[in-house]
Amino acid sequence: MAFELYYWPGLPGRGEFVRLALEHAEADYVDVVRDRKSGMSALTRIMEKEAATPPFAPPFLKDGDLVICQTAAILLHLGDRLKLAPKNPARRLWAHQIQLTIADLVAEVHNVHHPVATGLYYEDQKREARKAARSFREDRIPKYLEWFERILAHEGRGGKWLVGRSAGYVDLSLFHLVEGLRYAFPVAMEREEAATPRVVALNSAVRELSAIAAYLASKRHIPFNEDGIFRHYPELDG
Amino acid sequence: MAFELYYWPGLPGRGEFVRLALEHAEADYVDVVRDRKSGMSALTRIMEKEAATPPFAPPFLKDGDLVICQTAAILLHLGDRLKLAPKNPARRLWAHQIQLTIADLVAEVHNVHHPVATGLYYEDQKREARKAARSFREDRIPKYLEWFERILAHEGRGGKWLVGRSAGYVDLSLFHLVEGLRYAFPVAMEREEAATPRVVALNSAVRELSAIAAYLASKRHIPFNEDGIFRHYPELDG
Repeated sequence: MAFELYYWPGLPGRGEFVRLALEHAEADYVDVVRDRKSGMSALTRIMEKEAATPPFAPPFLKDGDLVICQTAAILLHLGDRLKLAPKNPARRLWAHQIQLTIADLVAEVHNVHHPVATGLYYEDQKREARKAARSFREDRIPKYLEWFERILAHEGRGGKWLVGRSAGYVDLSLFHLVEGLRYAFPVAMEREEAATPRVVALNSAVRELSAIAAYLASKRHIPFNEDGIFRHYPELDG
Repeated sequence: MAFELYYWPGLPGRGEFVRLALEHAEADYVDVVRDRKSGMSALTRIMEKEAATPPFAPPFLKDGDLVICQTAAILLHLGDRLKLAPKNPARRLWAHQIQLTIADLVAEVHNVHHPVATGLYYEDQKREARKAARSFREDRIPKYLEWFERILAHEGRGGKWLVGRSAGYVDLSLFHLVEGLRYAFPVAMEREEAATPRVVALNSAVRELSAIAAYLASKRHIPFNEDGIFRHYPELDG
């Protein structure tokens, strides 16, 4: 049975981390809201009524009877199902920890353009966003990128992936994270990337994976835009 | 071998979610930074040099050779080790999803008093915090509490815990979350709790668990304070 991914249409968002895993594994899946006419009402119905395990927010994944929410939990599940994570329990848990740290950075990125409230427009919190962006660019981006670099340096010995010898879901997620940061903060990222060559190399290596390359060139792939998590507001870069 | 918990001293913070699980299970553990003279340098050493899986941030747990960071990942591990989560993989994953959603709320709570930057003082972002707090109180607290209430109503049929028939780590975490929200936003919480009686009952039930009651009365338990995640600034409540 095909996996069913439920996520808002029109933006890559957190759904993209799941999509990349499904695409890389060439899994049979439906991107429900985009692929089916009644997709959005199906999403609402599952969240509000149907699920015994109601998702707090999209994305969520249906795998048969299972409904799984929380991006990192979905990937923990798909890591096993699609062989995108180590089998060894300690290594599997380590991959999950990296994913959870990626999730923390994603939440911080969103917070940069919405520091005051998710429910308000960016235009209503621009002044605060500018202050938040400065500290994010100067303190947070380097701190996170250096941590990933350190993991790659330790793990690296001949390899290039975060955990193990082939590309796993965490590598796909780090790829997307770097793509998103480059889109949102091109000036800051050009500066910061110089210090983290392994992170940059991983990004390139993921882009060249055949199923990922095909996906990125397809219409299934949604470009970054200012409805998403990674938004390019030039006044927040620098 | 005793578990080793590494966390900042002097505040409950994210470490408290781990502490509650260890305490409820009456596990043998060392709260390293508080219990050992050289605890803080041990924390730094593990983060910066020793660990093959370097923690991005405290809390982290040592379980023999394993070093695990990310509160929800630590609890996923302890859930198995201490029997504080279902064995059934789907139920185990569901408990983890709830924990991840609790973690999201914890991050939002911190963001209320630090909307602009974690690295700046509260005093330097008071104005922004006031705006953030309003939307947090009016939109976010009810949304999260209602979600927990709904899970309890569905799961409840005669029981009182979030997942399964005995108190698990998620119940302990929801207990602490409610305690923290009450401390930080007493006025708002008095209003909001009226709509979520099951969440309130769970909080009381956890407090009466014998090992938890003993822990709360002990010196091991750190009261909330304004260095932590849940801070009581009257100007942010209402």
